[in-house]
Amino acid sequence: MKAVAMPTVSRVAVCGGTHGNELAGIYLVREMLKKRADGTEPVSVVTVMSNPRAAQLCVRYVETDLNRCFTRAALSAPVSETSPYEMIRSQELNALLGAQRSVDLLCDLHNTTANTGLCLITYSDRDWICLHICKHLSTNRRFVKKNTLFLSAMEIGPQPHGVVRSVIFSAMQEGVQLMMDWICQFNSGTLFEGGWVDVYTMVKNIDYPRDSETHMISAAVHPDLQDRDFCLLHPGDPMFLCFSGETLRYRGKEALYPFFINEGAYYEKGVALSLARKRRVQIPSVRSETLR
Amino acid sequence: MKAVAMPTVSRVAVCGGTHGNELAGIYLVREMLKKRADGTEPVSVVTVMSNPRAAQLCVRYVETDLNRCFTRAALSAPVSETSPYEMIRSQELNALLGAQRSVDLLCDLHNTTANTGLCLITYSDRDWICLHICKHLSTNRRFVKKNTLFLSAMEIGPQPHGVVRSVIFSAMQEGVQLMMDWICQFNSGTLFEGGWVDVYTMVKNIDYPRDSETHMISAAVHPDLQDRDFCLLHPGDPMFLCFSGETLRYRGKEALYPFFINEGAYYEKGVALSLARKRRVQIPSVRSETLR
Repeated sequence: MKAVAMPTVSRVAVCGGTHGNELAGIYLVREMLKKRADGTEPVSVVTVMSNPRAAQLCVRYVETDLNRCFTRAALSAPVSETSPYEMIRSQELNALLGAQRSVDLLCDLHNTTANTGLCLITYSDRDWICLHICKHLSTNRRFVKKNTLFLSAMEIGPQPHGVVRSVIFSAMQEGVQLMMDWICQFNSGTLFEGGWVDVYTMVKNIDYPRDSETHMISAAVHPDLQDRDFCLLHPGDPMFLCFSGETLRYRGKEALYPFFINEGAYYEKGVALSLARKRRVQIPSVRSETLR
Repeated sequence: MKAVAMPTVSRVAVCGGTHGNELAGIYLVREMLKKRADGTEPVSVVTVMSNPRAAQLCVRYVETDLNRCFTRAALSAPVSETSPYEMIRSQELNALLGAQRSVDLLCDLHNTTANTGLCLITYSDRDWICLHICKHLSTNRRFVKKNTLFLSAMEIGPQPHGVVRSVIFSAMQEGVQLMMDWICQFNSGTLFEGGWVDVYTMVKNIDYPRDSETHMISAAVHPDLQDRDFCLLHPGDPMFLCFSGETLRYRGKEALYPFFINEGAYYEKGVALSLARKRRVQIPSVRSETLR
């Protein structure tokens, strides 16, 4: 396959604290902010604390989930002083990073209580830059095991919200460094060979079992499923263990890949886990346009 | 040693949700509340949701930490409608459970993000009932490894706040059941042999390293120490790994036992871990007074 020529990635944004209690990204961004750019960097990196008020309070959000405020509708809605803080902040961030296409690539740092390892989440399976970065990270020994994917976000777990664990911080730091290494090599004209990348596409969310009267959760994720993100779940496999002792099984007809299993922030969203289908996506060789 | 005759334990309180985001205790109390007493129980158990507003919001507390409102001063302070919710609630709980000595034993259920296993926390090393319950739990196979102690609280981890993990829920359920079994046997006249119990007494708290200017945390607990609660920490052992990469070591002169390592709720209290000294406490044989 012929190498696809693509624009250089000259402006990168690294964001942390989109959720104010996901501490690895917050501390990593604070570390990055300490190192002032001196103009000799091969790539221009803008480092952003996405939700500084929530980070200050160590809560996911102050008034509404910032990560749900980047829809076209939310970004174009009229805001005033009485609008939810995150609605105002999303428009500020969009003006800074999005509206004028002022950055070529944005990496938003997240943590999860689920045992996902390092995941990259992107919204297109034809974004060759993101998929090449995925491939680059997955060939790094440290990330082989759980590196799987979906990049506009880098998600790492398990880590409790409101806590920073050193190994998770280091994995995120290394993940960002590997991404920057790839970008620098790409910009300097390196040809990156194509190949196949495993991609997980979300099929559906599963809620916790609930009491029919109170609507309260009546079961936890089954011990056999807990922490087994991206391990195939077959029909009939244990899924939940009720507080009363009963085991509930996966009743779907298709074996699927669970992820975000028992993510703390999703209790309020009614999501106990998500299920994905795995595909192999063929990606072309790429090199930067400037050296075509 | 002669058996000490002690009053029966006829009224027990089991409390959950003193911290509203410690979900195992909250779900266990909700399960217990479903089972109405029919008057045939050998022991009278009152089950209490300590901080229902915080539990509803899934936050540690609404206005102030309820677990710090049980001091003599807080319990006797005048309160009004404008007082912090937890100040009012602590006085309600004290009237219900404490003031008239209306219960003989209180077990307050907590979770921690630290890898403590099941711990019982008590404020006296001469409370033979609590220490016998500890001994009873520690001879149960499941709890041998990490059962250690300080009972007025049963603390289990690791579990992220705002999350319920099935194995932690089950361990707590089993811990409460073993406690109730011991109480029933004790009340029915069983002689419990004395012996030795390992007790950990708190020596001091250690804060996270902080930036001298911003006062922000500049290091996480070192990977070699993380999750090693109740494993002896020697002078010179790694303690923190700075975000900048530097390792900081334990500089005390005495080997001590770390616990509550990297507990999420203690960031705001300036506690990265606590250090304890281990002692063996000799406890006498006990039996209930009624059958003396």
